[in-house]
Amino acid sequence: MRYGDLADVPCSITRPLVVLGDRWTLLVLKQCFAGTRRFSALKDELGISRSRLVDRLDRLVEHGLLRHTDGDYRLTAKGLDTYPILLALRDFGDKHMAPGGAPFSYQHAGCGGEAHVSVGCAACGQMLTARDVTLALGPGLAS
Amino acid sequence: MRYGDLADVPCSITRPLVVLGDRWTLLVLKQCFAGTRRFSALKDELGISRSRLVDRLDRLVEHGLLRHTDGDYRLTAKGLDTYPILLALRDFGDKHMAPGGAPFSYQHAGCGGEAHVSVGCAACGQMLTARDVTLALGPGLAS
Repeated sequence: MRYGDLADVPCSITRPLVVLGDRWTLLVLKQCFAGTRRFSALKDELGISRSRLVDRLDRLVEHGLLRHTDGDYRLTAKGLDTYPILLALRDFGDKHMAPGGAPFSYQHAGCGGEAHVSVGCAACGQMLTARDVTLALGPGLAS
Repeated sequence: MRYGDLADVPCSITRPLVVLGDRWTLLVLKQCFAGTRRFSALKDELGISRSRLVDRLDRLVEHGLLRHTDGDYRLTAKGLDTYPILLALRDFGDKHMAPGGAPFSYQHAGCGGEAHVSVGCAACGQMLTARDVTLALGPGLAS
């Protein structure tokens, strides 16, 4: 299976990887969430080559996660929807790759509590692990 | 910044990308969650080259996300902790890259409800978006 074919796989974990299955793309998004908007600032903050950054920004704009106006790169509504993915990575990193403690605290501005990702059932509200979840055909394949 | 340097960045989004910032690694994990354990089955299901699959499995074992015993690759407790990352990708994919409807339904085995990822405040319980979250130095950097 080649890179571009991922978008054709009937799986909603696989399809986003066409744009998000790349470490530099995720790091660019992280900096955008942190408020960085300029090419030169992204390049300096990430220590990334110019050609690599151009490639990733172009792809993010092409897929509608960033818009490029007046020299600024800004997250679109679709781009903002990647936040749970980044925060899920951060929860994993804090738990397994931060032996000296969490480098950063992601605080709810309203109350100062820590923001976390959780998996829950939309019907009964129970918190779920992978063991609690079974796969079934969805509306996109069941017809 | 080079690939291996990512683990040294004091950021819990960045560090996990040393192993998880790669589409094939995430696809291998997805198949493991779906119950696949054998090299040949992973290779067939993913349509991935032998050398690429060896590389990704070795890295997952090296980082302690899979263990390799009696020919089977199985998720460890650390590997199971990647589930929210995959489910966050799937929520994004269902919303933005599934025009014909969700290909699969991830159902709470207990009640049949749909499993979803959410970002919430650990203190007050409020659901959060990126707009509600501010960054502060954590215990790993504040001292």
